[in-house]
Amino acid sequence: MLSRRGLMLVLSSPSGAGKTSISRKLLEIDDNINLSVSATTRKRRPGEVEGKDYHFVDETSFKLKINQNYFLEYAEVFDHFYGTPAEQVADRLEQGKDVLFDIDWQGTQQLKANARDDLVSIFILPPSLAELERRLHTRAQDSADVVAGRMAKAADEMSHYPEYDYVIINHDLALSVQAVCQILAAERLKRERLVGLTDFVKRLRSR
Amino acid sequence: MLSRRGLMLVLSSPSGAGKTSISRKLLEIDDNINLSVSATTRKRRPGEVEGKDYHFVDETSFKLKINQNYFLEYAEVFDHFYGTPAEQVADRLEQGKDVLFDIDWQGTQQLKANARDDLVSIFILPPSLAELERRLHTRAQDSADVVAGRMAKAADEMSHYPEYDYVIINHDLALSVQAVCQILAAERLKRERLVGLTDFVKRLRSR
Repeated sequence: MLSRRGLMLVLSSPSGAGKTSISRKLLEIDDNINLSVSATTRKRRPGEVEGKDYHFVDETSFKLKINQNYFLEYAEVFDHFYGTPAEQVADRLEQGKDVLFDIDWQGTQQLKANARDDLVSIFILPPSLAELERRLHTRAQDSADVVAGRMAKAADEMSHYPEYDYVIINHDLALSVQAVCQILAAERLKRERLVGLTDFVKRLRSR
Repeated sequence: MLSRRGLMLVLSSPSGAGKTSISRKLLEIDDNINLSVSATTRKRRPGEVEGKDYHFVDETSFKLKINQNYFLEYAEVFDHFYGTPAEQVADRLEQGKDVLFDIDWQGTQQLKANARDDLVSIFILPPSLAELERRLHTRAQDSADVVAGRMAKAADEMSHYPEYDYVIINHDLALSVQAVCQILAAERLKRERLVGLTDFVKRLRSR
Protein backbone atom coordinates (compact mmCIF):
# COMPACT_ATOMS: atom_id res chain seq x y z
CA MET A 1 0.00 0.00 0.00
CA LEU A 2 1.28 3.44 -0.91
CA SER A 3 1.52 6.09 1.74
CA ARG A 4 0.34 9.61 1.11
CA ARG A 5 0.92 13.13 2.22
CA GLY A 6 -1.78 14.60 4.48
CA LEU A 7 -3.98 17.47 3.47
CA MET A 8 -5.36 20.59 5.11
CA LEU A 9 -9.14 20.67 5.02
CA VAL A 10 -10.75 24.05 5.47
CA LEU A 11 -14.42 24.34 6.30
CA SER A 12 -15.84 27.85 6.19
CA SER A 13 -19.35 29.20 6.33
CA PRO A 14 -21.38 32.08 7.67
CA SER A 15 -22.54 31.41 11.21
CA GLY A 16 -25.84 29.63 11.11
CA ALA A 17 -24.94 27.41 8.17
CA GLY A 18 -24.07 24.39 10.28
CA LYS A 19 -20.29 24.24 9.93
CA THR A 20 -19.60 23.51 13.58
CA SER A 21 -21.96 20.52 13.67
CA ILE A 22 -20.40 19.16 10.49
CA SER A 23 -16.84 19.56 11.86
CA ARG A 24 -17.73 17.88 15.15
CA LYS A 25 -19.30 14.91 13.39
CA LEU A 26 -16.38 14.59 10.97
CA LEU A 27 -13.83 14.50 13.81
CA GLU A 28 -15.93 11.81 15.47
CA ILE A 29 -16.09 9.44 12.49
CA ASP A 30 -12.74 9.98 10.77
CA ASP A 31 -9.70 8.96 12.83
CA ASN A 32 -7.23 10.34 10.35
CA ILE A 33 -8.23 13.98 10.67
CA ASN A 34 -7.75 16.27 13.66
CA LEU A 35 -8.12 19.91 14.50
CA SER A 36 -4.79 21.60 14.80
CA VAL A 37 -4.01 22.95 18.25
CA SER A 38 -3.94 26.74 18.07
CA ALA A 39 -1.74 29.08 20.01
CA THR A 40 -3.64 31.81 21.83
CA THR A 41 -3.01 34.80 24.06
CA ARG A 42 -6.26 34.45 25.94
CA LYS A 43 -6.23 33.16 29.51
CA ARG A 44 -6.56 29.47 30.15
CA ARG A 45 -10.04 28.56 31.36
CA PRO A 46 -10.73 25.93 34.03
CA GLY A 47 -10.46 22.45 32.53
CA GLU A 48 -8.43 23.51 29.48
CA VAL A 49 -5.18 21.64 28.97
CA GLU A 50 -2.01 23.27 27.61
CA GLY A 51 -0.97 21.59 24.35
CA LYS A 52 -4.31 19.83 23.99
CA ASP A 53 -6.91 22.60 23.86
CA TYR A 54 -4.49 25.41 23.10
CA HIS A 55 -0.89 26.47 23.41
CA PHE A 56 -1.16 29.38 25.84
CA VAL A 57 1.38 32.13 25.16
CA ASP A 58 1.71 35.75 26.14
CA GLU A 59 1.13 38.58 23.70
CA THR A 60 4.78 39.60 23.38
CA SER A 61 5.92 36.16 22.32
CA PHE A 62 2.87 35.74 20.06
CA LYS A 63 3.79 38.92 18.20
CA LEU A 64 7.39 37.80 17.96
CA LYS A 65 6.24 34.50 16.44
CA ILE A 66 4.14 36.40 13.88
CA ASN A 67 7.29 38.13 12.71
CA GLN A 68 9.15 34.82 12.57
CA ASN A 69 6.46 33.33 10.27
CA TYR A 70 5.71 30.83 12.98
CA PHE A 71 2.00 30.80 12.09
CA LEU A 72 0.26 29.48 9.00
CA GLU A 73 -2.54 31.87 9.79
CA TYR A 74 -3.52 34.01 12.76
CA ALA A 75 -6.30 36.35 13.75
CA GLU A 76 -7.18 38.81 16.45
CA VAL A 77 -10.62 38.20 17.93
CA PHE A 78 -11.97 40.36 20.77
CA ASP A 79 -8.49 41.52 21.81
CA HIS A 80 -6.98 38.03 21.84
CA PHE A 81 -4.72 36.44 19.27
CA TYR A 82 -5.20 32.96 17.85
CA GLY A 83 -2.78 31.26 15.45
CA THR A 84 -1.93 27.94 13.83
CA PRO A 85 1.71 26.86 14.35
CA ALA A 86 3.11 25.96 10.92
CA GLU A 87 5.55 23.30 12.10
CA GLN A 88 2.96 21.26 13.93
CA VAL A 89 0.80 21.10 10.78
CA ALA A 90 3.80 20.27 8.57
CA ASP A 91 4.66 17.34 10.86
CA ARG A 92 1.16 15.91 10.62
CA LEU A 93 1.07 16.24 6.83
CA GLU A 94 4.42 14.42 6.58
CA GLN A 95 2.93 11.56 8.59
CA GLY A 96 -0.01 11.31 6.20
CA LYS A 97 -2.45 12.78 8.70
CA ASP A 98 -5.02 15.39 7.72
CA VAL A 99 -5.68 18.61 9.57
CA LEU A 100 -9.07 20.28 9.87
CA PHE A 101 -9.44 24.06 9.96
CA ASP A 102 -12.67 25.64 11.11
CA ILE A 103 -11.81 29.19 10.03
CA ASP A 104 -13.27 32.14 8.18
CA TRP A 105 -12.40 33.49 4.73
CA GLN A 106 -9.62 35.69 6.09
CA GLY A 107 -7.86 32.72 7.69
CA THR A 108 -8.39 30.73 4.51
CA GLN A 109 -6.69 33.43 2.44
CA GLN A 110 -3.68 33.33 4.76
CA LEU A 111 -3.55 29.53 4.58
CA LYS A 112 -3.78 29.57 0.81
CA ALA A 113 -0.71 31.76 0.64
CA ASN A 114 1.24 29.14 2.64
CA ALA A 115 -0.27 25.80 1.73
CA ARG A 116 -0.52 25.35 -2.03
CA ASP A 117 -1.52 21.82 -3.07
CA ASP A 118 -2.03 20.71 0.52
CA LEU A 119 -5.15 22.83 0.90
CA VAL A 120 -8.68 21.61 0.19
CA SER A 121 -11.37 24.18 0.91
CA ILE A 122 -15.11 23.73 1.34
CA PHE A 123 -17.70 26.44 1.77
CA ILE A 124 -20.94 25.52 3.53
CA LEU A 125 -24.08 27.44 2.63
CA PRO A 126 -27.47 27.42 4.34
CA PRO A 127 -30.33 25.98 2.25
CA SER A 128 -32.36 29.21 2.22
CA LEU A 129 -32.59 32.75 3.51
CA ALA A 130 -35.52 31.81 5.77
CA GLU A 131 -33.57 28.94 7.30
CA LEU A 132 -30.50 31.13 7.85
CA GLU A 133 -32.63 33.73 9.59
CA ARG A 134 -34.26 31.08 11.73
CA ARG A 135 -30.85 29.79 12.83
CA LEU A 136 -29.49 33.25 13.55
CA HIS A 137 -32.57 34.16 15.56
CA THR A 138 -31.30 32.00 18.37
CA ARG A 139 -33.30 33.40 21.25
CA ALA A 140 -36.81 34.76 21.51
CA GLN A 141 -35.56 37.98 23.06
CA ASP A 142 -33.15 38.75 20.20
CA SER A 143 -34.02 42.18 18.89
CA ALA A 144 -34.64 42.77 15.22
CA ASP A 145 -31.42 44.83 15.20
CA VAL A 146 -29.33 42.00 16.59
CA VAL A 147 -30.67 39.56 14.00
CA ALA A 148 -30.23 42.13 11.22
CA GLY A 149 -26.61 42.59 12.32
CA ARG A 150 -25.98 38.85 12.19
CA MET A 151 -27.62 38.61 8.78
CA ALA A 152 -25.44 41.42 7.45
CA LYS A 153 -22.33 39.66 8.77
CA ALA A 154 -23.46 36.38 7.22
CA ALA A 155 -24.10 38.13 3.90
CA ASP A 156 -20.58 39.52 3.98
CA GLU A 157 -19.09 36.10 4.76
CA MET A 158 -21.07 34.42 2.01
CA SER A 159 -19.69 36.78 -0.61
CA HIS A 160 -16.41 34.85 -0.32
CA TYR A 161 -17.69 31.48 -1.56
CA PRO A 162 -15.89 31.87 -4.92
CA GLU A 163 -12.56 31.48 -3.12
CA TYR A 164 -13.37 27.86 -2.21
CA ASP A 165 -12.87 24.59 -4.11
CA TYR A 166 -16.13 22.93 -3.13
CA VAL A 167 -19.55 24.18 -2.10
CA ILE A 168 -21.99 22.19 0.02
CA ILE A 169 -25.53 23.41 0.59
CA ASN A 170 -26.42 22.13 4.03
CA HIS A 171 -29.95 20.83 3.63
CA ASP A 172 -29.32 17.94 5.98
CA LEU A 173 -26.50 17.39 8.47
CA ALA A 174 -25.96 13.68 7.71
CA LEU A 175 -25.84 14.28 3.94
CA SER A 176 -23.45 17.19 4.36
CA VAL A 177 -21.13 15.12 6.55
CA GLN A 178 -21.24 12.38 3.93
CA ALA A 179 -20.35 14.92 1.24
CA VAL A 180 -17.33 16.13 3.25
CA CYS A 181 -16.23 12.50 3.70
CA GLN A 182 -16.51 11.88 -0.05
CA ILE A 183 -14.44 14.97 -0.77
CA LEU A 184 -11.81 13.77 1.71
CA ALA A 185 -11.78 10.28 0.19
CA ALA A 186 -11.35 11.68 -3.30
CA GLU A 187 -8.69 14.21 -2.36
CA ARG A 188 -6.70 11.46 -0.65
CA LEU A 189 -6.48 9.75 -4.07
CA LYS A 190 -5.04 12.81 -5.82
CA ARG A 191 -1.90 11.76 -7.64
CA GLU A 192 0.25 14.52 -6.20
CA ARG A 193 -0.45 13.37 -2.63
CA LEU A 194 0.67 9.79 -3.17
CA VAL A 195 4.16 9.27 -1.80
CA GLY A 196 6.48 6.83 -3.55
CA LEU A 197 4.32 6.59 -6.67
CA THR A 198 7.29 7.16 -8.97
CA ASP A 199 9.15 4.20 -7.45
CA PHE A 200 6.02 2.07 -7.39
CA VAL A 201 5.47 2.58 -11.12
CA LYS A 202 9.17 2.04 -11.78
CA ARG A 203 8.89 -1.40 -10.18
CA LEU A 204 5.75 -2.18 -12.22
CA ARG A 205 7.68 -1.30 -15.36
CA SER A 206 10.91 -3.09 -14.43
CA ARG A 207 10.46 -6.35 -16.27
CA MET B 1 -31.55 22.08 -5.12
CA LEU B 2 -28.91 23.55 -7.40
CA SER B 3 -28.29 21.97 -10.75
CA ARG B 4 -24.82 21.33 -12.01
CA ARG B 5 -22.85 20.95 -15.17
CA GLY B 6 -21.87 17.38 -16.05
CA LEU B 7 -18.28 16.19 -16.13
CA MET B 8 -16.19 13.97 -18.36
CA LEU B 9 -14.67 11.10 -16.42
CA VAL B 10 -11.66 9.45 -18.02
CA LEU B 11 -10.49 6.05 -16.82
CA SER B 12 -7.18 4.91 -18.25
CA SER B 13 -4.89 2.03 -17.39
CA PRO B 14 -2.58 -0.49 -18.95
CA SER B 15 -4.46 -3.60 -20.03
CA GLY B 16 -4.55 -6.05 -17.17
CA ALA B 17 -5.12 -3.40 -14.51
CA GLY B 18 -8.88 -3.93 -14.30
CA LYS B 19 -10.20 -0.78 -15.90
CA THR B 20 -12.90 -2.51 -17.94
CA SER B 21 -14.38 -4.29 -14.92
CA ILE B 22 -14.40 -1.02 -12.98
CA SER B 23 -16.11 0.85 -15.85
CA ARG B 24 -18.75 -1.82 -16.27
CA LYS B 25 -19.58 -1.83 -12.56
CA LEU B 26 -19.70 1.98 -12.43
CA LEU B 27 -22.15 2.16 -15.34
CA GLU B 28 -24.30 -0.40 -13.55
CA ILE B 29 -24.58 1.42 -10.23
CA ASP B 30 -24.54 5.09 -11.26
CA ASP B 31 -27.50 6.19 -13.37
CA ASN B 32 -26.12 9.62 -14.04
CA ILE B 33 -23.08 8.50 -16.03
CA ASN B 34 -22.98 6.89 -19.47
CA LEU B 35 -20.44 5.94 -22.05
CA SER B 36 -20.50 8.27 -25.00
CA VAL B 37 -21.48 6.63 -28.27
CA SER B 38 -18.47 6.66 -30.58
CA ALA B 39 -18.46 7.04 -34.31
CA THR B 40 -16.53 4.33 -36.12
CA THR B 41 -15.55 3.30 -39.63
CA ARG B 42 -15.53 -0.38 -38.86
CA LYS B 43 -18.33 -2.60 -40.16
CA ARG B 44 -21.39 -3.12 -38.04
CA ARG B 45 -21.41 -6.55 -36.41
CA PRO B 46 -24.53 -8.68 -35.97
CA GLY B 47 -26.59 -7.40 -33.04
CA GLU B 48 -25.01 -3.94 -32.97
CA VAL B 49 -27.45 -1.05 -33.16
CA GLU B 50 -26.69 2.21 -34.99
CA GLY B 51 -26.74 5.13 -32.56
CA LYS B 52 -26.67 2.85 -29.53
CA ASP B 53 -23.46 0.84 -29.87
CA TYR B 54 -21.81 3.10 -32.43
CA HIS B 55 -22.51 5.64 -35.09
CA PHE B 56 -21.36 3.79 -38.21
CA VAL B 57 -19.84 6.09 -40.82
CA ASP B 58 -17.63 5.60 -43.86
CA GLU B 59 -13.99 6.60 -43.90
CA THR B 60 -14.42 9.58 -46.21
CA SER B 61 -16.98 11.25 -44.02
CA PHE B 62 -15.03 10.34 -40.85
CA LYS B 63 -11.96 12.13 -42.23
CA LEU B 64 -14.07 15.10 -43.24
CA LYS B 65 -15.46 15.29 -39.69
CA ILE B 66 -11.91 15.22 -38.29
CA ASN B 67 -11.15 18.35 -40.30
CA GLN B 68 -14.35 19.98 -39.07
CA ASN B 69 -13.34 19.41 -35.43
CA TYR B 70 -16.37 17.22 -35.07
CA PHE B 71 -14.54 14.91 -32.63
CA LEU B 72 -13.37 15.57 -29.09
CA GLU B 73 -10.84 12.80 -29.64
CA TYR B 74 -10.30 10.11 -32.22
CA ALA B 75 -7.92 7.23 -32.87
CA GLU B 76 -7.04 4.75 -35.56
CA VAL B 77 -6.97 1.17 -34.28
CA PHE B 78 -6.20 -1.74 -36.62
CA ASP B 79 -7.14 0.27 -39.75
CA HIS B 80 -10.42 1.52 -38.33
CA PHE B 81 -11.23 4.96 -36.97
CA TYR B 82 -13.05 5.61 -33.71
CA GLY B 83 -14.06 9.05 -32.46
CA THR B 84 -16.16 10.87 -29.86
CA PRO B 85 -18.65 13.39 -31.34
CA ALA B 86 -18.14 16.66 -29.47
CA GLU B 87 -21.71 17.92 -29.73
CA GLN B 88 -23.25 14.83 -28.19
CA VAL B 89 -20.97 15.16 -25.16
CA ALA B 90 -21.62 18.91 -24.86
CA ASP B 91 -25.38 18.23 -24.79
CA ARG B 92 -25.05 15.72 -21.97
CA LEU B 93 -22.85 18.04 -19.91
CA GLU B 94 -25.38 20.85 -20.32
CA GLN B 95 -28.07 18.54 -18.94
CA GLY B 96 -25.95 17.79 -15.89
CA LYS B 97 -25.16 14.25 -17.05
CA ASP B 98 -21.67 12.79 -16.80
CA VAL B 99 -19.86 10.99 -19.60
CA LEU B 100 -17.45 8.12 -19.08
CA PHE B 101 -14.42 7.64 -21.32
CA ASP B 102 -12.58 4.36 -21.36
CA ILE B 103 -9.59 5.56 -23.39
CA ASP B 104 -5.80 5.50 -23.42
CA TRP B 105 -3.36 8.30 -22.67
CA GLN B 106 -3.37 9.50 -26.27
CA GLY B 107 -7.13 9.97 -26.24
CA THR B 108 -6.86 11.64 -22.84
CA GLN B 109 -4.36 14.14 -24.18
CA GLN B 110 -6.73 15.04 -27.01
CA LEU B 111 -9.65 15.39 -24.60
CA LYS B 112 -7.62 17.59 -22.27
CA ALA B 113 -6.99 19.99 -25.11
CA ASN B 114 -10.77 20.33 -25.65
CA ALA B 115 -12.34 19.84 -22.23
CA ARG B 116 -10.70 22.06 -19.62
CA ASP B 117 -12.54 22.05 -16.28
CA ASP B 118 -15.02 19.44 -17.42
CA LEU B 119 -12.40 16.71 -17.40
CA VAL B 120 -11.65 14.46 -14.43
CA SER B 121 -9.03 11.83 -15.10
CA ILE B 122 -8.19 8.68 -13.17
CA PHE B 123 -5.33 6.29 -13.82
CA ILE B 124 -5.74 2.70 -12.62
CA LEU B 125 -2.60 0.76 -11.70
CA PRO B 126 -2.23 -2.96 -10.98
CA PRO B 127 -1.21 -3.81 -7.40
CA SER B 128 2.07 -5.48 -8.38
CA LEU B 129 4.25 -6.60 -11.24
CA ALA B 130 3.47 -10.26 -10.50
CA GLU B 131 -0.27 -9.61 -10.57
CA LEU B 132 0.01 -7.65 -13.84
CA GLU B 133 1.96 -10.48 -15.42
CA ARG B 134 -0.58 -13.01 -14.19
CA ARG B 135 -3.42 -11.02 -15.75
CA LEU B 136 -1.60 -10.53 -19.05
CA HIS B 137 -0.74 -14.21 -19.22
CA THR B 138 -4.29 -14.96 -20.17
CA ARG B 139 -3.93 -18.38 -21.65
CA ALA B 140 -1.64 -21.31 -20.86
CA GLN B 141 -0.43 -21.47 -24.44
CA ASP B 142 0.72 -17.81 -24.52
CA SER B 143 4.38 -17.80 -25.48
CA ALA B 144 6.94 -15.94 -23.38
CA ASP B 145 7.31 -13.53 -26.33
CA VAL B 146 3.61 -12.70 -26.42
CA VAL B 147 3.53 -11.99 -22.68
CA ALA B 148 6.76 -9.97 -22.89
CA GLY B 149 5.20 -7.89 -25.68
CA ARG B 150 2.12 -7.19 -23.57
CA MET B 151 4.29 -6.29 -20.58
CA ALA B 152 6.31 -3.86 -22.67
CA LYS B 153 3.12 -2.23 -23.92
CA ALA B 154 1.77 -2.00 -20.36
CA ALA B 155 5.05 -0.47 -19.19
CA ASP B 156 4.78 2.16 -21.88
CA GLU B 157 1.18 2.96 -20.96
CA MET B 158 2.00 3.22 -17.27
CA SER B 159 4.66 5.84 -17.90
CA HIS B 160 1.77 8.28 -18.52
CA TYR B 161 0.26 8.19 -15.03
CA PRO B 162 1.62 11.69 -14.21
CA GLU B 163 -0.84 13.16 -16.71
CA TYR B 164 -3.84 12.11 -14.57
CA ASP B 165 -5.60 13.82 -11.63
CA TYR B 166 -6.16 10.73 -9.52
CA VAL B 167 -4.44 7.37 -9.17
CA ILE B 168 -6.15 4.21 -7.93
CA ILE B 169 -4.17 1.07 -7.24
CA ASN B 170 -6.56 -1.74 -8.00
CA HIS B 171 -6.04 -4.18 -5.14
CA ASP B 172 -9.71 -5.06 -5.03
CA LEU B 173 -12.47 -4.42 -7.57
CA ALA B 174 -15.15 -3.37 -5.07
CA LEU B 175 -12.84 -0.92 -3.30
CA SER B 176 -11.68 0.54 -6.60
CA VAL B 177 -15.27 1.04 -7.76
CA GLN B 178 -16.03 2.71 -4.44
CA ALA B 179 -13.02 5.00 -4.91
CA VAL B 180 -14.23 6.02 -8.37
CA CYS B 181 -17.69 6.74 -6.91
CA GLN B 182 -16.16 8.90 -4.19
CA ILE B 183 -14.17 10.85 -6.76
CA LEU B 184 -17.35 11.37 -8.78
CA ALA B 185 -19.31 12.48 -5.71
CA ALA B 186 -16.61 14.97 -4.77
CA GLU B 187 -16.11 16.34 -8.26
CA ARG B 188 -19.86 16.91 -8.54
CA LEU B 189 -19.53 19.31 -5.57
CA LYS B 190 -16.82 21.41 -7.19
CA ARG B 191 -17.87 25.03 -7.05
CA GLU B 192 -17.26 25.68 -10.73
CA ARG B 193 -19.69 22.92 -11.76
CA LEU B 194 -22.64 24.27 -9.76
CA VAL B 195 -25.03 26.12 -12.01
CA GLY B 196 -26.90 29.13 -10.63
CA LEU B 197 -24.69 29.43 -7.54
CA THR B 198 -24.20 33.16 -8.05
CA ASP B 199 -27.95 33.75 -8.04
CA PHE B 200 -28.47 31.37 -5.14
CA VAL B 201 -25.98 33.26 -2.98
CA LYS B 202 -27.44 36.57 -4.14
CA ARG B 203 -30.82 35.48 -2.78
CA LEU B 204 -29.23 34.37 0.50
CA ARG B 205 -27.67 37.80 0.84
CA SER B 206 -30.72 39.77 -0.24
CA ARG B 207 -32.14 40.71 3.14
